[in-house]
Amino acid sequence: MDFSITRIARTVLRVTDLQASRKFYVDGLGLIETESDENHIYLRGLEEHSHHSLLLKKGDKPVVEVLSYKVDKDADLEEIEKLFKSKGLKTKWMAKGQQHAIGRTLRAHDISGIPLEFFAEMPTVDRMLQRYDLYRGAKIQRIDHVNCAVPDVQKAYDFYVNQLGFRCSEYTDTEEGELWAAWLYRKPTVHDQAFMSGPGPRLHHFAFSLTDRLSLLDCCDVLASLGYADSIERGPGRHGLSNAFFLYLRDPDGHRVELYTGDYLTIDTDIKPIRWDLNNPLRQTFWGHVAPDCWFNEASTFVDIETDEEIDYKEPLLEQRKPYIMT
Amino acid sequence: MDFSITRIARTVLRVTDLQASRKFYVDGLGLIETESDENHIYLRGLEEHSHHSLLLKKGDKPVVEVLSYKVDKDADLEEIEKLFKSKGLKTKWMAKGQQHAIGRTLRAHDISGIPLEFFAEMPTVDRMLQRYDLYRGAKIQRIDHVNCAVPDVQKAYDFYVNQLGFRCSEYTDTEEGELWAAWLYRKPTVHDQAFMSGPGPRLHHFAFSLTDRLSLLDCCDVLASLGYADSIERGPGRHGLSNAFFLYLRDPDGHRVELYTGDYLTIDTDIKPIRWDLNNPLRQTFWGHVAPDCWFNEASTFVDIETDEEIDYKEPLLEQRKPYIMT
Amino acid sequence: MDFSITRIARTVLRVTDLQASRKFYVDGLGLIETESDENHIYLRGLEEHSHHSLLLKKGDKPVVEVLSYKVDKDADLEEIEKLFKSKGLKTKWMAKGQQHAIGRTLRAHDISGIPLEFFAEMPTVDRMLQRYDLYRGAKIQRIDHVNCAVPDVQKAYDFYVNQLGFRCSEYTDTEEGELWAAWLYRKPTVHDQAFMSGPGPRLHHFAFSLTDRLSLLDCCDVLASLGYADSIERGPGRHGLSNAFFLYLRDPDGHRVELYTGDYLTIDTDIKPIRWDLNNPLRQTFWGHVAPDCWFNEASTFVDIETDEEIDYKEPLLEQRKPYIMT
Amino acid sequence: MDFSITRIARTVLRVTDLQASRKFYVDGLGLIETESDENHIYLRGLEEHSHHSLLLKKGDKPVVEVLSYKVDKDADLEEIEKLFKSKGLKTKWMAKGQQHAIGRTLRAHDISGIPLEFFAEMPTVDRMLQRYDLYRGAKIQRIDHVNCAVPDVQKAYDFYVNQLGFRCSEYTDTEEGELWAAWLYRKPTVHDQAFMSGPGPRLHHFAFSLTDRLSLLDCCDVLASLGYADSIERGPGRHGLSNAFFLYLRDPDGHRVELYTGDYLTIDTDIKPIRWDLNNPLRQTFWGHVAPDCWFNEASTFVDIETDEEIDYKEPLLEQRKPYIMT
Repeated sequence: MDFSITRIARTVLRVTDLQASRKFYVDGLGLIETESDENHIYLRGLEEHSHHSLLLKKGDKPVVEVLSYKVDKDADLEEIEKLFKSKGLKTKWMAKGQQHAIGRTLRAHDISGIPLEFFAEMPTVDRMLQRYDLYRGAKIQRIDHVNCAVPDVQKAYDFYVNQLGFRCSEYTDTEEGELWAAWLYRKPTVHDQAFMSGPGPRLHHFAFSLTDRLSLLDCCDVLASLGYADSIERGPGRHGLSNAFFLYLRDPDGHRVELYTGDYLTIDTDIKPIRWDLNNPLRQTFWGHVAPDCWFNEASTFVDIETDEEIDYKEPLLEQRKPYIMT
Repeated sequence: MDFSITRIARTVLRVTDLQASRKFYVDGLGLIETESDENHIYLRGLEEHSHHSLLLKKGDKPVVEVLSYKVDKDADLEEIEKLFKSKGLKTKWMAKGQQHAIGRTLRAHDISGIPLEFFAEMPTVDRMLQRYDLYRGAKIQRIDHVNCAVPDVQKAYDFYVNQLGFRCSEYTDTEEGELWAAWLYRKPTVHDQAFMSGPGPRLHHFAFSLTDRLSLLDCCDVLASLGYADSIERGPGRHGLSNAFFLYLRDPDGHRVELYTGDYLTIDTDIKPIRWDLNNPLRQTFWGHVAPDCWFNEASTFVDIETDEEIDYKEPLLEQRKPYIMT
Repeated sequence: MDFSITRIARTVLRVTDLQASRKFYVDGLGLIETESDENHIYLRGLEEHSHHSLLLKKGDKPVVEVLSYKVDKDADLEEIEKLFKSKGLKTKWMAKGQQHAIGRTLRAHDISGIPLEFFAEMPTVDRMLQRYDLYRGAKIQRIDHVNCAVPDVQKAYDFYVNQLGFRCSEYTDTEEGELWAAWLYRKPTVHDQAFMSGPGPRLHHFAFSLTDRLSLLDCCDVLASLGYADSIERGPGRHGLSNAFFLYLRDPDGHRVELYTGDYLTIDTDIKPIRWDLNNPLRQTFWGHVAPDCWFNEASTFVDIETDEEIDYKEPLLEQRKPYIMT
Repeated sequence: MDFSITRIARTVLRVTDLQASRKFYVDGLGLIETESDENHIYLRGLEEHSHHSLLLKKGDKPVVEVLSYKVDKDADLEEIEKLFKSKGLKTKWMAKGQQHAIGRTLRAHDISGIPLEFFAEMPTVDRMLQRYDLYRGAKIQRIDHVNCAVPDVQKAYDFYVNQLGFRCSEYTDTEEGELWAAWLYRKPTVHDQAFMSGPGPRLHHFAFSLTDRLSLLDCCDVLASLGYADSIERGPGRHGLSNAFFLYLRDPDGHRVELYTGDYLTIDTDIKPIRWDLNNPLRQTFWGHVAPDCWFNEASTFVDIETDEEIDYKEPLLEQRKPYIMT
């Protein structure tokens, strides 16, 4: 590869009520509001020195505009454009200045149709790590990963691993040995990008990393105090896969957010991916809890980078929609 | 009253496989094994200076033999006998020496038919609080309370409050204002004894107090590592009522154990009981989670203090079996 | 005894700058401000249903006005008065209405000269336990105890145990078997009132109870963020005696506050006091840390209940001022 | 650079009593014993998939044999050899098989005289992350970093940054702007290798990463229970620099170990190093605690890779031995 993707860097969401989103993400979850205007809120975690890792835009519908990856240097963008064009995938440049608080970006649809964005430059700000007086809610540290439902996980896997240089930490097979889900990374954690089999392309969830388990429990308590008990969709629990302690929330527009802590570093290049059987009851939740159906069925729609139309999603190739677990 | 009940002090359970129970309670939950023989295991929490707070007896069936209350002084036992006899309730003395590691006891059936036991004396042992090298699993500190399903909660409430000197910290009413559940105490915490409306008398669960929330999460992880993921029935979560962070487990015989931490002290005599509406979704779980049906339907059977026969249970007076919560 | 003391209930401090104290106690430590006016701030912990447990009064000098005990019923006050008068100790009534947010009180100097106050009635307010959105700093739950330096610990012990009905949970002897410190309780925890040998009577510290160890660490971080690193005098650490995890702070006027969590319940009446040798290095700090000299030498002065003059303190009877520990 | 160093990978210590060390590191700190024989113990953290990250060898004196870095691929070793030889630094090959449980290694003295070792290959083993039943003590996750005292920090900095490809996350200057300490990394955390000004070369400490703050507190309790209270040299506390929550221990031979948790990721290449003034009281301990003199003065001696003689250490160039902090 002639380019180097650094890490997942931001999610750009459309939300229908900025004030409701602010209350949820700032008061409830504890994100820091770097900046905002009438139509945008720029949010980051306490550890982040980048301007933002979540951009909320006022919109008519709750859709996902783009998932953004930081690259090592600006020249990487041309190389990435070449790759996407060579595969016949749509691309689009946005000059520096066209978007606030980010350098020039290359937007493109990936092999599954997911709208991605690549950039090398974002304004830096102070880490708020030692402003403990501002710690609230889940005390979110940083963006951790995104997880997309796609109809053909094997195809997505091949594109990200062989073309984009991702490595695989863990994966899930059906009993027939077909790839049902995969956890892929550029930064040395369990993942930047996960794929699971399902009607897609859709954003299943994006995730923030926390310092510890108690921050996650504190967030449940704060959300309930603020009237957001209904936002808690699944967890808290321990994933078998990744070992992370997790909580899934639905934001006021229904976008799914995961709070996540306790996975492991994947620094060495000689790490072997861990295989899980889809029907292993400890895979999803190490403590044996079963995820609710809505967790499997509901996800956020993407929009096209050119037309801004919602992207239709296709049915998955694999038949099995969720684990078969005796309860 | 001419007697003073101090606190709930022990649960006596019959279990079908002592070795399986030991693995669950000692390796999984972290109870200290004070003593044991071929047919008994005597267990206590890290904070407890009493010989045991859980007695497991080998039996053919998984039943509950008795719930034991400590009283202030030995002479209290005669006064309690008088009271029970005056109500026409069965009583039975067990002389000192008849049971191992406990002084003389008075057994009796309460107004709902629950087999109780009263005693003033139990051998004392060292607190293990500062043997941190022995902390395991949930690092259980002490017995906290017992919760029984009874067909007529109002009748149980009246007996415990008016005759036995318990006070009420919190309670649950139906929309018609009928008492559906009550939390009653002698020691200054939220409860020693709770009652909930249901087929009974049955032991719904007995509970241990933990130091903090992480001990409870640690226990989930340890249980899953030991192959006990199936034992986790409900939680972890936060109760609205009592404010405690909780986990419900089923032991190898199906007896339900609660791990419990984070309620409050009830020292002052001018505290007013807190009322909850049965259908308030924050009551059971402050985070909005709904308890599974098995949690409402399943419980442990008691045996008669004289005949040792299993006690038949009656249907509850109130119609509503569980909260109506929109999900 | 013909009266029943319930528990330590409040500390009344004079501070020289109310605004500075508010920042420290509310923003830093997380106390709830129930009410305030130009010259008073009434503070309570999240668990407390009493109006306040700390009263800060604007004053010229940072002194301690009184330590207040709640009693079971109003008539207990006359009985307590009788006792104090029989010992030739000064007493003083304050009618209901004379002090804000507290019923009628009996003030008196104890056998060591400490100004005490007894009352049966204080307005009740809602517990804030489930207002997790308001949790800040140390998330203080409730007042736990007060600790006074007195010149003759044995005399203080005898008065509190034999005359006032306190029980002893743990104590410290010199190698010669003289009582150097004692932990005494009415509410069933390790203490309401501790005494240590030293120039006195002085208030060594008052203490708040926290839910868990992380709340205490969080408080260190918040205090440092707010510029109060200098306020951290000793700890965090684990006491051998009481087993509590602790932190000692100095408020803006130099009054010493302890944050405290993790002791044990003392409900049973057959508990035997635990003896510690003064020179046992695990006694003060189970992890072996040595307390700084200022911790032994500095304390807050009391004022006389009648004259409002600062009370002179006397040198201790016992020679040993602090443990001999090899470092 | 024509090679890529991956991360700090192991410390090789000589200890005088293997059984005493096992008790400290396994029972006290919670390391997993991968393997051992009469003269060696191979230890790793719960997260580590490499065979070991700490090798204890029985020796006559408590010295440090070597600090080992993992490189990306075996061919990197020749490139590193070239570099060290070009600087006139001693090197030495150890063929695969010559050392147990590690591939062929290149040993070399760095610019300060520190004995380093480079290797590409170590046997992999299962991560023990989900064997929660084996979690003990500090529940150590992985090796984090090493910190060496050297007489000329600027020289060490230049060698590691310019020749070996390390990046700097944070550093400490004297008031005159001279480099007093530096935190350097290859893996994207705050450091793999730190240098501080002092008589050297000596190993000041090596550090393990923990999951959370409570694991560190638990370790203090467990160590005290096991009789190791004297091993706790400094902390627990919060570093200003790195933001990590820390504890410094002395093992039975006096080697210093740090337990460390809560720093941040350094993935982006556009991160700017953070400067701290040596005399900033929040630098070492964000809570204002002052480190004891022994922490500045004592450290472990290295041995020569060829002669196995202890390496003499030189006095530091900079005059200031420790921060000037008013206490």
